[in-house]
Order: sequence, then C-alpha cells, then structure tokens
Amino acid sequence: MEKTYYKKAETAKFQTQGSFQFDMNNEFDKLRVYAEAEKPDWYGEGAIIKNFEKEMADFFYKEDAAFFISGTMAQQSMMRVYCDNAKIYKVAYHPTCHMEVHEMGGLREIHGIHSYHLGTRKTLFTLSDLKTLTDVSCVVFELPQREMGGAAPSLEELTEMVMYLKQRGIKCHLDGARILEVLPYYKYKTKELFTLFDSIYMSYYKGLGGMAGAILVGNKKDIDDARIWRKRCGGTLVHMYPYVLSAKQAFNENKDKMQEYWKFSLDYSELLSRIAGATIEPKTPVCNMFHIYFDIDKTSLMRALTKVIDAYDISLFNKAILDTPDGGSFTEVVLKDSYRHVPKLKLEGAVKLFDAELKKIRKNK
Amino acid sequence: MEKTYYKKAETAKFQTQGSFQFDMNNEFDKLRVYAEAEKPDWYGEGAIIKNFEKEMADFFYKEDAAFFISGTMAQQSMMRVYCDNAKIYKVAYHPTCHMEVHEMGGLREIHGIHSYHLGTRKTLFTLSDLKTLTDVSCVVFELPQREMGGAAPSLEELTEMVMYLKQRGIKCHLDGARILEVLPYYKYKTKELFTLFDSIYMSYYKGLGGMAGAILVGNKKDIDDARIWRKRCGGTLVHMYPYVLSAKQAFNENKDKMQEYWKFSLDYSELLSRIAGATIEPKTPVCNMFHIYFDIDKTSLMRALTKVIDAYDISLFNKAILDTPDGGSFTEVVLKDSYRHVPKLKLEGAVKLFDAELKKIRKNK
Repeated sequence: MEKTYYKKAETAKFQTQGSFQFDMNNEFDKLRVYAEAEKPDWYGEGAIIKNFEKEMADFFYKEDAAFFISGTMAQQSMMRVYCDNAKIYKVAYHPTCHMEVHEMGGLREIHGIHSYHLGTRKTLFTLSDLKTLTDVSCVVFELPQREMGGAAPSLEELTEMVMYLKQRGIKCHLDGARILEVLPYYKYKTKELFTLFDSIYMSYYKGLGGMAGAILVGNKKDIDDARIWRKRCGGTLVHMYPYVLSAKQAFNENKDKMQEYWKFSLDYSELLSRIAGATIEPKTPVCNMFHIYFDIDKTSLMRALTKVIDAYDISLFNKAILDTPDGGSFTEVVLKDSYRHVPKLKLEGAVKLFDAELKKIRKNK
Repeated sequence: MEKTYYKKAETAKFQTQGSFQFDMNNEFDKLRVYAEAEKPDWYGEGAIIKNFEKEMADFFYKEDAAFFISGTMAQQSMMRVYCDNAKIYKVAYHPTCHMEVHEMGGLREIHGIHSYHLGTRKTLFTLSDLKTLTDVSCVVFELPQREMGGAAPSLEELTEMVMYLKQRGIKCHLDGARILEVLPYYKYKTKELFTLFDSIYMSYYKGLGGMAGAILVGNKKDIDDARIWRKRCGGTLVHMYPYVLSAKQAFNENKDKMQEYWKFSLDYSELLSRIAGATIEPKTPVCNMFHIYFDIDKTSLMRALTKVIDAYDISLFNKAILDTPDGGSFTEVVLKDSYRHVPKLKLEGAVKLFDAELKKIRKNK
C-alpha cells in the first residue's frame, strides 16, 4: 500500500505541494545567468560568495554573514561560539528544535553542548518558561515553529521575551530556516523582527526552493568565529558555487512570493478543514505550512488518497504520512508554486471524494 | 608585485597547471549527460548516490562507501569511529597530515582526538617509527605525501608496515586524496594496495578535477557509523547531486589519465631541474606533482616569472609561491590536462629565460 501510494503521489499530474522528482538539468539551467557574471569561489573566498554574504548581512540588519552548506552546521557553529564565549555549555530551545530532533545529537556529541527544553511539543514557549532558566548561554527561537505546523508568537510576545533575555545577558538566536515564509504574518516589519536577535540562520531550500545551503548572520566577531567551526567541521568546501548560485537565484526569484504562498495555505487549510475527522494545526496557518491530523490510521488514509489520485490525478499530500500514538495519522503541508496550477474546482471535488472515502473506510471498520 | 604576478599568472594564454578562472556554466554542462538518467538524491539516499557509492566500494575492494562533501569531514568521521571503538582517542600520522595542518585543529577541537607524529616534515615514516607507537587506535598513511611533493614509499615497505600494525590490532587508514595519481607508480597493483588498508578516503577535486566531494570506503559497519557523524556534522545535505554528478563525471572521464599526467610531471621536473638554484622534491616525481625550491626569495622569483609571462605568455607556476625559513622560496607543481597544450619549444625557451632572469637578479643583489 505504502509504496504504491507514494509512487502515485509523486507522479500525479496535479501536485498541491510539488514533487521531488524534478529534473536536475533544469535546476542547473536556472543558475546559468547567475553563473555568467561570476568567477568560482575558493575555500569560502571570492566575490561570488563574499558579495552574497554582504547582501544577506544587509537584508537581516547584521554586520556579517557566512554561507553554510547546511543549517545543521550553521546553527551548531553559532551555539559553539556562544558557549565558548560564555563558558556555559548549555543552550535552551523548544523540545522540537531541529538540533534536538533531526541532527542525531550532533550538538552534544560534537560540541559537548547540552540542552534545556522550553515549552512542550504542543505549545510554544512563553516568557514564564524563560523565567525558569538558570545557566544557559543562548536561547534558540524558531519562527515559524516547524514541528507545530508553523505556529508563531506575535511580534509583541517575541519582543517581551527577547528584552527579558537581553537583561539577563543571554544570547538570542533565531532558527529562521523558514523566516521569509512568516514575514507576511509579521507584516514585513523586518527591522523590528530581525534586530531582536543576536544571530539568525535561514535556509535556501525550504520556501525558497534552492538546492541546499544556509546563511548565518550576526555580528562580525561571532560570524568570523563561526567560520572557524565551519572549516573545522569540513564545511568550507573548495567550491560551494552550485549552492551559492542556487541560493542567489532562489532568494532573488522567490523571496517575494511568500504572501501568495500564505494565501494558498489559508485557502487549502480551509478546504481540508471541511473533512470530517481532520484537524488543522495551527487552526489558522500563519505561513505557507500547516500540519493536518486525522482520526484514522496511516494505511487507511493512504487508501483513500490513492482513490483520489486515481479519480482526479491530484496528489493532496506529498510529504510522509505518519501514524500518531493515538491511532490516528498526520502529515505536513507546505504550499508553493505548484499549488497555483491545481484547478480549483477539481481540487474541491478531490477533497470531497477524499472525505467520502474516509467515511466509507470508517463505516467498514 | 604579488598581486600583479598572480593576476598575470592566472590570465596567461598557456598554463602549465591550469587556471582557477574556469567557467562555471561549462562545469554544469559537463554534468548534463550524467544528470539526465538520474533522479535527485535526498539526504544521502536515492539511486544516484547509492549506486555511485557501490561502484566506489567495488573499485577499492571494500564492503561499503559513503559520499562526503569534503575529505576533512570524511577522515575526521573515520577517526572518530575508530577511536570510539578502541576507546583510545589518539591516532598517529605524518606531521604534515591534512588533519594536522589544514583543518584548524578540527580533529582535536570537534572530536577530542589527539595525534602522535610519525616521521619528519622532510622524511616519510618507516617501520622503525611505527615501533615507537604506544597507544593509538589508528595510523593514517598518505599516498602520495602531498606536503613532501607527492613522495611515496614502495609497495613492499607499505606492506611491511601494515602487517606490523595489523599484528598489533591498530587500524590502518589511507589518506588517498590523490591515490589515483600514484597508481601508475604502483604499477596499478590496486588490489594489493587497497586491501592493505581498513579504510580509504579519495578526493574528487584533486587530479580528477571535480567540483568538490570525497569518498570514504571501508567495511559496512564502520562506514555506516561514519555516516552518523556525517549527519551530526551537518554533512548529509538534502541534495548533494551537483557534487555526486561531478564526482561521477570526473572519475569516469579522468581516472585513466594519471599515467599521462605522471609523464608530464617527469618531463616538466626534468626541464625545471636545469635551472640554477632550483631543487625538485622528490628528485624523481612518483606522480603528477612535485615541489620545487629556489635559493631566492619569493618576490624576486615572482619578478622573474612575470618577465617570462610577458615574453612567452606562459605561466610556469600557478599555485601560491611561499617564502621558506632559509630565505628561499618554494611552490607546488601539479600537472594535468592544460600541460598538454603548452608548446614544448616555447616552454623550453620560457624556462631558459626564467633561469637567465634569476641569474640577473642574483647578480644585482
């Protein structure tokens, strides 16, 4: 079942979330015009990378920026710098922080940095959580909170939390892997938002759709120190130009689409919320992503989705569908360009059929 | 002087060693045919990467292979696995080992692994050096020894050393960044050579001329463990296909050129050895690289080289020219395709002029 479903979902004509089966030569073609004017980089040096780092530093109102091939390395490096400076090898973050759940314990195993958890898997952390902090060198904010379907606190709440931490001399780092996606929600008050944080990491392959790569911005001394860890980890590659060019291309061409992507998300989540037994998290998405939970197991869900693909050639979901501990299932929804090409009426029909199929399955159980 | 010289050296019509001012779009074009038949990788998974890893494991007579974006990360990961297994956080290597001199202490700072040095900066290590070893988990061999101009011991010496270490239960790792380059010297006895080592790392951007990237080969358990460190370090990128495709292309198209490259090196080193005050290291190169030392300072050397470029449009050297502690200078020479296009007679004239210019400078001192 599972294999069949994923194969069909990947090759359906209409994709709400886009397919991973893209053409690599097409990706290289996107870089041509960006590559023409430039000379290759060399171990992190050269105008191609330095000018882009400068552009990014300016965008985030920071002194300096370092290009990293991965967010994992960027954030771990920043944590190491803060911990070395404070001589406190502990940082605080949400229990679903990428460093906690997706990096096989790299922060601890490589850098000897321990973590303190703020908030719960189902709630964002607040000022009162921060007041329980004892000895940490840094607090990591994540905007939007990916593992909570992209939830985010208000700018006022954020400001209050950061002000409190600054008073206590604790560094504030932003995991902004998807920060552009949530800027429309913050009404593009970028200066107010970005200047809250001592450092920010952003990814080029989430909403922006680049090949890979990340940027780390902050003050000059900290970023220079982070570059030392990039080198030590083996991340200062002889040539990073494929990723630098792709980051440039993706940033230039896609950064202004986030308002539209958010609209897709509001639109699609409203449509999906009509399905009996479906719950959207957060209830009203604040960016182009949300999570959807079902009161039915993964296999049954895939069965219903397969019927929808067969009837409409529409893949409603494209990411992994996972079982939840209570016998239900869930998946992540991220809307980008491909949603624009899904015929609205067809999509409504597909969602209706999906709902009907789920009802049938429930009845036969 | 320095800036002028490097600029002229980079843009001279004839390059003995090739220029770094290559066209990135041309590099992407090389990948087209390799990209066509494949689907993109996804966090280290997918046929595009797995099949290539299998091909590399077979080539090196090993059970498994892992693609890494950098040799730094590959070798550090392998050392960590060996040290964790042996519970001995010390490895032995030559004082000019890449991990010692080019990684800003990553092995120690990231992995807490200390080093014991075998041999001297000017001599390869031998069996008698190994007999001084006390508690190390691994000995790193480097073939050829880059910082000694690509010197290498005989297969017999190597075998004797490895047999001794195996008896003592010490792992043998090969830094084979440039191992293909030295295969002609070992008369392509690849099975005898490769099976000596528990693990081997090879680079795709040295003699092979790829964009970046490396392979680490060894037994299944060790390589799987090394993949965990790759993930922890932030090296398991969402998409590594630009480097995987480039590695494939470079390996397929360039691996059989090493005999010819070695011939270039023998030829060019003989020509350069006619220059008064020049010393080639090693005296007879064993691969496509050698170092050349001069009894004259860097600035004077660049002055003479600039005259040669102006007269012949030939860049004799392309890598950094460095001062030596005794008031002389040295540079590294690596011959590849571009040497083929340098007219022989012109080159002889250029070297003669270079010799004459050096003599003039010495006289005026």
